[in-house]
Amino acid sequence: MANFQVRTDLALEARESIGEAESALHGVRVEEYYKEEQDVRVTKVMIDTKNAAKAMGKPVGIYVTMEAPAMVEPDEAYHREISECFASELLELLPGKGEEQSVLIVGLGNREVTADSLGPQAVDNLFITRHIVREYGAAAYNREKINLISALEPGVMAKTGMETAEIVKGVVRETEPDVLIVIDALAARSIRRLNRTIQITNTGIQPGSGVGNHRNALTQESLGVPVIAVGIPTVVDAATIVSDALEKLLEEEKEADVVKYVSRQQKNFPELNNMYMTGKDIDAVVKRVSYTVSEGINLALQMCMDEMGTA
Amino acid sequence: MANFQVRTDLALEARESIGEAESALHGVRVEEYYKEEQDVRVTKVMIDTKNAAKAMGKPVGIYVTMEAPAMVEPDEAYHREISECFASELLELLPGKGEEQSVLIVGLGNREVTADSLGPQAVDNLFITRHIVREYGAAAYNREKINLISALEPGVMAKTGMETAEIVKGVVRETEPDVLIVIDALAARSIRRLNRTIQITNTGIQPGSGVGNHRNALTQESLGVPVIAVGIPTVVDAATIVSDALEKLLEEEKEADVVKYVSRQQKNFPELNNMYMTGKDIDAVVKRVSYTVSEGINLALQMCMDEMGTA
Amino acid sequence: MANFQVRTDLALEARESIGEAESALHGVRVEEYYKEEQDVRVTKVMIDTKNAAKAMGKPVGIYVTMEAPAMVEPDEAYHREISECFASELLELLPGKGEEQSVLIVGLGNREVTADSLGPQAVDNLFITRHIVREYGAAAYNREKINLISALEPGVMAKTGMETAEIVKGVVRETEPDVLIVIDALAARSIRRLNRTIQITNTGIQPGSGVGNHRNALTQESLGVPVIAVGIPTVVDAATIVSDALEKLLEEEKEADVVKYVSRQQKNFPELNNMYMTGKDIDAVVKRVSYTVSEGINLALQMCMDEMGTA
Amino acid sequence: MANFQVRTDLALEARESIGEAESALHGVRVEEYYKEEQDVRVTKVMIDTKNAAKAMGKPVGIYVTMEAPAMVEPDEAYHREISECFASELLELLPGKGEEQSVLIVGLGNREVTADSLGPQAVDNLFITRHIVREYGAAAYNREKINLISALEPGVMAKTGMETAEIVKGVVRETEPDVLIVIDALAARSIRRLNRTIQITNTGIQPGSGVGNHRNALTQESLGVPVIAVGIPTVVDAATIVSDALEKLLEEEKEADVVKYVSRQQKNFPELNNMYMTGKDIDAVVKRVSYTVSEGINLALQMCMDEMGTA
Repeated sequence: MANFQVRTDLALEARESIGEAESALHGVRVEEYYKEEQDVRVTKVMIDTKNAAKAMGKPVGIYVTMEAPAMVEPDEAYHREISECFASELLELLPGKGEEQSVLIVGLGNREVTADSLGPQAVDNLFITRHIVREYGAAAYNREKINLISALEPGVMAKTGMETAEIVKGVVRETEPDVLIVIDALAARSIRRLNRTIQITNTGIQPGSGVGNHRNALTQESLGVPVIAVGIPTVVDAATIVSDALEKLLEEEKEADVVKYVSRQQKNFPELNNMYMTGKDIDAVVKRVSYTVSEGINLALQMCMDEMGTA
Repeated sequence: MANFQVRTDLALEARESIGEAESALHGVRVEEYYKEEQDVRVTKVMIDTKNAAKAMGKPVGIYVTMEAPAMVEPDEAYHREISECFASELLELLPGKGEEQSVLIVGLGNREVTADSLGPQAVDNLFITRHIVREYGAAAYNREKINLISALEPGVMAKTGMETAEIVKGVVRETEPDVLIVIDALAARSIRRLNRTIQITNTGIQPGSGVGNHRNALTQESLGVPVIAVGIPTVVDAATIVSDALEKLLEEEKEADVVKYVSRQQKNFPELNNMYMTGKDIDAVVKRVSYTVSEGINLALQMCMDEMGTA
Repeated sequence: MANFQVRTDLALEARESIGEAESALHGVRVEEYYKEEQDVRVTKVMIDTKNAAKAMGKPVGIYVTMEAPAMVEPDEAYHREISECFASELLELLPGKGEEQSVLIVGLGNREVTADSLGPQAVDNLFITRHIVREYGAAAYNREKINLISALEPGVMAKTGMETAEIVKGVVRETEPDVLIVIDALAARSIRRLNRTIQITNTGIQPGSGVGNHRNALTQESLGVPVIAVGIPTVVDAATIVSDALEKLLEEEKEADVVKYVSRQQKNFPELNNMYMTGKDIDAVVKRVSYTVSEGINLALQMCMDEMGTA
Repeated sequence: MANFQVRTDLALEARESIGEAESALHGVRVEEYYKEEQDVRVTKVMIDTKNAAKAMGKPVGIYVTMEAPAMVEPDEAYHREISECFASELLELLPGKGEEQSVLIVGLGNREVTADSLGPQAVDNLFITRHIVREYGAAAYNREKINLISALEPGVMAKTGMETAEIVKGVVRETEPDVLIVIDALAARSIRRLNRTIQITNTGIQPGSGVGNHRNALTQESLGVPVIAVGIPTVVDAATIVSDALEKLLEEEKEADVVKYVSRQQKNFPELNNMYMTGKDIDAVVKRVSYTVSEGINLALQMCMDEMGTA
């Protein structure tokens, strides 16, 4: 079904949709391991060549996917064990390990739309140090070296009249961070991945992906500094889910028919554009997973610092 | 397709799904008119008999549906012309016209979930008088008579541990209002009705309808006072939309096949339970329509008072 | 200065304002101890007689004040050590220890006013069980016995048109809890107590105290069940702070002059009515202390259950 | 009392504190008029020389103060009559009248602290056009010419780790607006000015003024484009109010004593630093006045456009 647009932000799902045969694609390496104690399955998809990137529909780079079924369940400590896994995966993608760095964390999305509020909620709970260190030095934290951590919630274009990329670019130019971490809610293809999966990639964020169209590219190419993107799928695109439903139903039918049905479906359902599907307890879930993310970032940036040594 | 559960809170859609023939059902009267200036189409479905109620899947009573396409568009004055239509329709269903009344307005739903926040947002903008009138009399408003208006946001069961009906019942017993107006976000069957339709009914709210399961019955029978329910569809149930997509695709196929497909679909998609579909600009839309509703209620209760005469 | 109204919700401050001599008052017992590890000073004021109650301006009952200077500082775990102290003090005042109980927790105050949002914020983070236990039994939590925990945010009179006491009374009648815990922001006399002090009392809440006039009595007498009130001072009354400033300045002056100044002050500053004073970081502080309170309540109700034994 | 620091953001109050004699200062011109229908008193203070600026403690420029007592009262239309006054005063200070302009509106302050949320709340209700015009041209609004309106909520330093000025500077460089309008909550000296006064100035915002220390200079000098600052006082500084109370009490006393008292007061009350005083209904009031401001800006920028003519 080469001409049907699979709508997913997860490299894991992009790979699945290519199918078994192609996963042995040249230029794509895959590593998998399972952390039993935390019940977290980690899949690293490394896209090494431009050809592979084209086949996968994702840029060259590393995509780490953590599947953590417990993440969706209530937990008093916001699943600190998952935050710790996430911190160590994040740390591997962060450049400049062991050195003092200035890190800007950007929370994309719309705080007012529950399913799109992961980024804004996550930046609410970060440990921010830049203003203190610039005023009083690392000594304010009893350290010799410390990361300068800052955060930005750029808001959405409908409310600002500006592209997210314009705002981020301006702030990056003015404050000159060494690296960006960008947090965003994603769209998954499969309902069973919702709120259970964290994707970390060193490719930044590309135009046209994600829940809303709230930005264009946030990448090393466009911003001049490395960009790590962190995302959790909180919604499934409505058109995708209907397509998938159709495909499942029809998969016993003849192949020729499938193509006919799907192209008909695309004409029949223009009204599904800009609709998305989400769960009923989305408020509690997004609040919870945003803590898992922010705690993981706090831990990772703390671990960096521990490698630098204290005073 | 008698054995397929149509999931809609709109009497208008329930009637449509029964089909043309049955709409001439005994015990169901329908009135329609179009207010050209405001571009509002009003349909009144009056279910008069228990048999008709059973056929429609809705209790005996009056269901007014206002279709107002402009409601979804931005407007500086929150579509006052629609608020005025709504106020006059609401006023017709309110008992005790021309008399001073105590009116409790209940905003159902979850403020934290955008699509379910219509009720809580609408009660934020009501003109509340009860506490002032009880302390200082109608004279505080330079009137001889005035309605005592109060409002309640009971919250959702996951956060309170109590049924909404328990909370409302307790407050009704203690404060003894003459009539309740209950505001809630609804589920529609059709995407094109989302946020464009206001339903007003004198049957109150029945268990199992609406976006969440956040209450059981709020009816005259359960509470002892008349209950007017006001709702706007803000979501479409995910399973319904998939079913509808299938039906449309398959409607050219043989009838026998349809039944087979649909029953298969119901087995295939248990994961669609508790999922709903909503638009991407839902935050701005719900904020806007909640004003249209609250202004309409303010106007209706003001108009009541004007009929009573001022001092 | 007997005829000057001291405005404080803290029994500790009421006692201080009476002065050294009177603290040896008949009918008032005081116990103090210091928990060194947690740096928490606990003062229990037990008012045993009506005469003592009159002298203190507080009803007969037990008032526990925890002074915890660390509470105002950031802490990753929301000062779990203080939550634990608080839990054990709360547990001592809770009736029916060791038995399964139904506990309703009421968050008073206005979520929209930062300094008054302690109650609403604290109930956001409680572990709610009542609806689950009623549906599935204690077995849902793998226990033989479990407390039924519910929560209510009644809102403020300006928005509901109802006294908080009316709403709470109605809900208590309908849901029949065994005990109430009521959480509210308090007014302190002294700036140095702001956000550093937790008061727990078994006397419930009396009309006219607190930040706003958002309720009348919530007591065992008015509601028919024991009422434990938990409060943290988040504001200082503006008139009180000006009075105190004057007193300090004038304390070297002749006693007769003081009375003259203060009565003049009361005429001069009617505009200070309904004004309060609060700190600039009040948003972060209230968020933090609300977690300390909710975690403490969660722990206390969990400890109750542990005394009951698990399945 | 030359050496006592008057803490106010209002030029009107700075002038009052200088006293009658000095108001005939060289280099300061004052115009006053009263709009009877709207009950709005407008005072324009024009500081023309550096000497005058030094004496006033405010930079050279124009300060328009609108005193509108009705603003603090509830009104269904958010005091449109005051918005209209404000729009016409704002329009006089805006450069480039009659030409198509790109206007960036910045909402300073902390959304989470009620008294400091004027800026963020006001930008919520602006009519944003920049992204639409850039995509579809003025034709999208059926016009030949139209202003490009964008908005930014930079947040507070404790949450971003960046100075507000850094963020604004970056965004200005990147998006190149022709003019900035900056909205902020102010501190007044007098309680009777709270929420009743709008100040508009073409001098931008200077470091150290306002409720919090959430920025340094936002001025034409620092940003390279004209900056109009709009503010409403929502708080009174706690130390100021105590000082004022003392002054009033002591003004009948001998002048020498006053100096003694006040210097003593400054030693006695270090704890008043970072405290502010505000009213109990601050949530409703700030919501209301933020609408008055945003509607005024919407009107002003619309009026600009009307002068340009429609297609």
